[in-house]
Amino acid sequence: MTSSKTNPGNFFEDYHIGQILKHATPRTVTEGDVALYMGLYGPRFAVQSSDAFAKAIGYPRAPIDDLLMFHLVFGKTVPDISLNAIANLGYAEGRVMRAVYPGETLSTVSEVIGLKENSNKETGTVYVRSTGRNQDGDIVLQYCRWVMVRKRDKSAPVGDPVVPKLKDRVDPSEFGAAVPALKTEAYDYDLAGSASRWGDYEVGERIDHVDGMTLEEAEHQIATRLYQNTAKVHFNLHTEAKGRFGKRIVYGGVCISLARALSFNGMNNAFHVAAINGGRHVAPLFAGDTVYAWTEVLEKAEIPGRKDVGALRTRLVAVKNQDCSGFPYKTDPKTYADGVMLDLDIWVVLPR
Amino acid sequence: MTSSKTNPGNFFEDYHIGQILKHATPRTVTEGDVALYMGLYGPRFAVQSSDAFAKAIGYPRAPIDDLLMFHLVFGKTVPDISLNAIANLGYAEGRVMRAVYPGETLSTVSEVIGLKENSNKETGTVYVRSTGRNQDGDIVLQYCRWVMVRKRDKSAPVGDPVVPKLKDRVDPSEFGAAVPALKTEAYDYDLAGSASRWGDYEVGERIDHVDGMTLEEAEHQIATRLYQNTAKVHFNLHTEAKGRFGKRIVYGGVCISLARALSFNGMNNAFHVAAINGGRHVAPLFAGDTVYAWTEVLEKAEIPGRKDVGALRTRLVAVKNQDCSGFPYKTDPKTYADGVMLDLDIWVVLPR
Amino acid sequence: MTSSKTNPGNFFEDYHIGQILKHATPRTVTEGDVALYMGLYGPRFAVQSSDAFAKAIGYPRAPIDDLLMFHLVFGKTVPDISLNAIANLGYAEGRVMRAVYPGETLSTVSEVIGLKENSNKETGTVYVRSTGRNQDGDIVLQYCRWVMVRKRDKSAPVGDPVVPKLKDRVDPSEFGAAVPALKTEAYDYDLAGSASRWGDYEVGERIDHVDGMTLEEAEHQIATRLYQNTAKVHFNLHTEAKGRFGKRIVYGGVCISLARALSFNGMNNAFHVAAINGGRHVAPLFAGDTVYAWTEVLEKAEIPGRKDVGALRTRLVAVKNQDCSGFPYKTDPKTYADGVMLDLDIWVVLPR
Repeated sequence: MTSSKTNPGNFFEDYHIGQILKHATPRTVTEGDVALYMGLYGPRFAVQSSDAFAKAIGYPRAPIDDLLMFHLVFGKTVPDISLNAIANLGYAEGRVMRAVYPGETLSTVSEVIGLKENSNKETGTVYVRSTGRNQDGDIVLQYCRWVMVRKRDKSAPVGDPVVPKLKDRVDPSEFGAAVPALKTEAYDYDLAGSASRWGDYEVGERIDHVDGMTLEEAEHQIATRLYQNTAKVHFNLHTEAKGRFGKRIVYGGVCISLARALSFNGMNNAFHVAAINGGRHVAPLFAGDTVYAWTEVLEKAEIPGRKDVGALRTRLVAVKNQDCSGFPYKTDPKTYADGVMLDLDIWVVLPR
Repeated sequence: MTSSKTNPGNFFEDYHIGQILKHATPRTVTEGDVALYMGLYGPRFAVQSSDAFAKAIGYPRAPIDDLLMFHLVFGKTVPDISLNAIANLGYAEGRVMRAVYPGETLSTVSEVIGLKENSNKETGTVYVRSTGRNQDGDIVLQYCRWVMVRKRDKSAPVGDPVVPKLKDRVDPSEFGAAVPALKTEAYDYDLAGSASRWGDYEVGERIDHVDGMTLEEAEHQIATRLYQNTAKVHFNLHTEAKGRFGKRIVYGGVCISLARALSFNGMNNAFHVAAINGGRHVAPLFAGDTVYAWTEVLEKAEIPGRKDVGALRTRLVAVKNQDCSGFPYKTDPKTYADGVMLDLDIWVVLPR
Repeated sequence: MTSSKTNPGNFFEDYHIGQILKHATPRTVTEGDVALYMGLYGPRFAVQSSDAFAKAIGYPRAPIDDLLMFHLVFGKTVPDISLNAIANLGYAEGRVMRAVYPGETLSTVSEVIGLKENSNKETGTVYVRSTGRNQDGDIVLQYCRWVMVRKRDKSAPVGDPVVPKLKDRVDPSEFGAAVPALKTEAYDYDLAGSASRWGDYEVGERIDHVDGMTLEEAEHQIATRLYQNTAKVHFNLHTEAKGRFGKRIVYGGVCISLARALSFNGMNNAFHVAAINGGRHVAPLFAGDTVYAWTEVLEKAEIPGRKDVGALRTRLVAVKNQDCSGFPYKTDPKTYADGVMLDLDIWVVLPR
């Protein structure tokens, strides 16, 4: 007798507008996760590395990395949203609402906010807004994401297309409250690794983060499992060897975290990712590739009500197997240069 | 002057019935171990993942995975029991007696309960009962294990054979007290990932756990060192390259933990392994292999005095490099099918 | 507009005698780091493994491994000292001054104590004394190190050579206070894995630590990132493939930690590294190599004021891809035997 208790994932026709998906598994974040995050990517931002540094400037203790929070919240959505996905198409309106500390438990709920069948009737785009909350129900992170999902049955009827209007930029007035009022006089720029503050960056400035980091299979697998992200393509060589690339595809979040960690060299004081305005995984990352990154400052903004910190809207670009001294990006407005993997538009926060 | 302070391990003639082996090294379990366990295998059972979930149903906090406890207790026995072992022949009467929480310190003592020389006089089978205890001396785990061990000297005299009578099934009345009285109304089946409870499973039901996980050398080495298991075959390519398989052999417990983590897909609420009735490592696992798993429900039992949870006796089968849609097992009663690595007979506990 | 905010590292002519370098990033040590350290190297010393064991003998809880502390303190110095280094030439006067416990935050300051240009005018030797402190400013570790650093400009003028007089041996009277007064009657030699105490070792005794451990790329990368050591040669296959060895070079500290972990087999009770008298990385370690180690007892000393513990000065030698039954070391006084990677002169502390 064969069971039907395993999760087959959702297909396009299984979704409806307004549908609420309450994802498994709630997850308590610990100092163990923080250590693994450090070991896997090598971030060096002082606020997230040191309880003493964080306390001195006004945090109760070192918060976890904003991207660790993102990956944990995101990972839970995979079994319900992207198990039958063909492609992760984009992100928007990502906002970190609160700092998360070890000991807090994260869970995620998603709402279906858009559905649009493709003309081939075989696939469609599903838009969701995912909300991560802590054990008290406080929102810690919210973001929108759209993915291309297979239909189970080409002839299944679907509703009229609904495409949500998503902002292409989070406004600084909408930032969350992750950063407490800082005791800026206690912010030690030597310990932070650089004297460059918000005021020292200029719109148009481009920063080559110089260093490169080669990724191993064990590293991305450990990371992705840590986030309880179960997408098959990251783990199963037996099937992927026969697949499109002949090998495992690395979870896109690993590329984001590596690029962010590399960005410390030149953005040492940009300790907080306040928002993800948009993001695109342009090309896949594989084990054996070496990741480089560069940043362009797109916009510079004060944050309403804050004299202690300011925001930089930056484009963080990750590139594989070539250094970023030439700032590789696009060959024409619609075409990314060879090697570009990630085009991420984020707001980062620095002391003023 | 050459020292003789290194541990040469015990040989068959070094053991006697009733011998007590107090194993090094006591080990405090931490949230770091829990994070590594997650990163290495990807388990998603809600009770072990979330302090908030665990507390809501009656635990003081999330307990560690039962198999993490098993590996930690087991690892300590290796230098005294299996350093000169040729084969790990079997397990029986494994019982998890208490939940273990981060901060507790585990140590292990083994008693020799059986000895039987083989007819070739070169090896013999050693049977031990190993008992793991916490820092207060409370038993957390007990199991029997038998291994084939080399003799140092073929002509060394040995005693009459003693073969212990081991039960082929732990009775649910003998289960430990690892699961507190559950507030079942607080058990959130959405967060747990499935609505399937004890009552929904039937004897004879077979569940293909679908997903496959490819193992890397770094992963099993990190796991096995974490358990302070020192068996040479897992770590030393320099010698193993000239050995039987030409490569490192993965600690069998890694295969068990991977299969158990995969079993979440279809057994989402089977959050506790109460007992190991028996187990056999049918074929070795190597780095590069992809592990799949399936489960058959062998027996369904109430647990004396418990209305909140029930037990399923299951056969958990791990298979390499082929999916489990065909439930690969045996080709005849004595012969395992190609690819089958693990045949494990366990009791798992689910909410009723 | 290209930014100049990235760290180019210091060149020889950037240093001056008496210069103080306050290194980024302060780092809180956690149980997560301890678990990773265990998973990556497999140490089994009871004091560092068990809170219960450590408390019983007089510690407030298990201290972190002395070498984990060393790596964390050392890692911070890399961006300021050795980013443009060609070679790590030596260590001296290394002293562990205090035990470090999870929750403490480490930071490092270095002072330039020597400078000597090489005759080629292209490089010079920089001598620093690095001091690791906890969040209260207490010194936890101090050591001297000298590295060969490139000049930016061959014609840049430099001062007269200053070569510090470094002791080739830390005297036991200079040991720190890392080990509390031990309740030696509570020290359980079974749990510690051996009955051999300080008094059981003799000068001239050589111990083959028997076991070998093969290293993977993911393992040394995770370790080195954990220490926030950013030296490019450890991580960047894209550039190193074209470099001197054609592959990534493993951080020397990984070799030290593996050798130390292997040394448990034969030095089970040498739970504390009190001092590093000197050390030399004789040959590089690469992923895929198997590390073996052996120890020679060079000196045996009482520690002033201590009846509970004694010190052994030992030579810890790490060798690759050959076992240490022949104690491989030097072929003549100036030439190391093939395969020898590490020649480390340390003081270890054992119960008397």
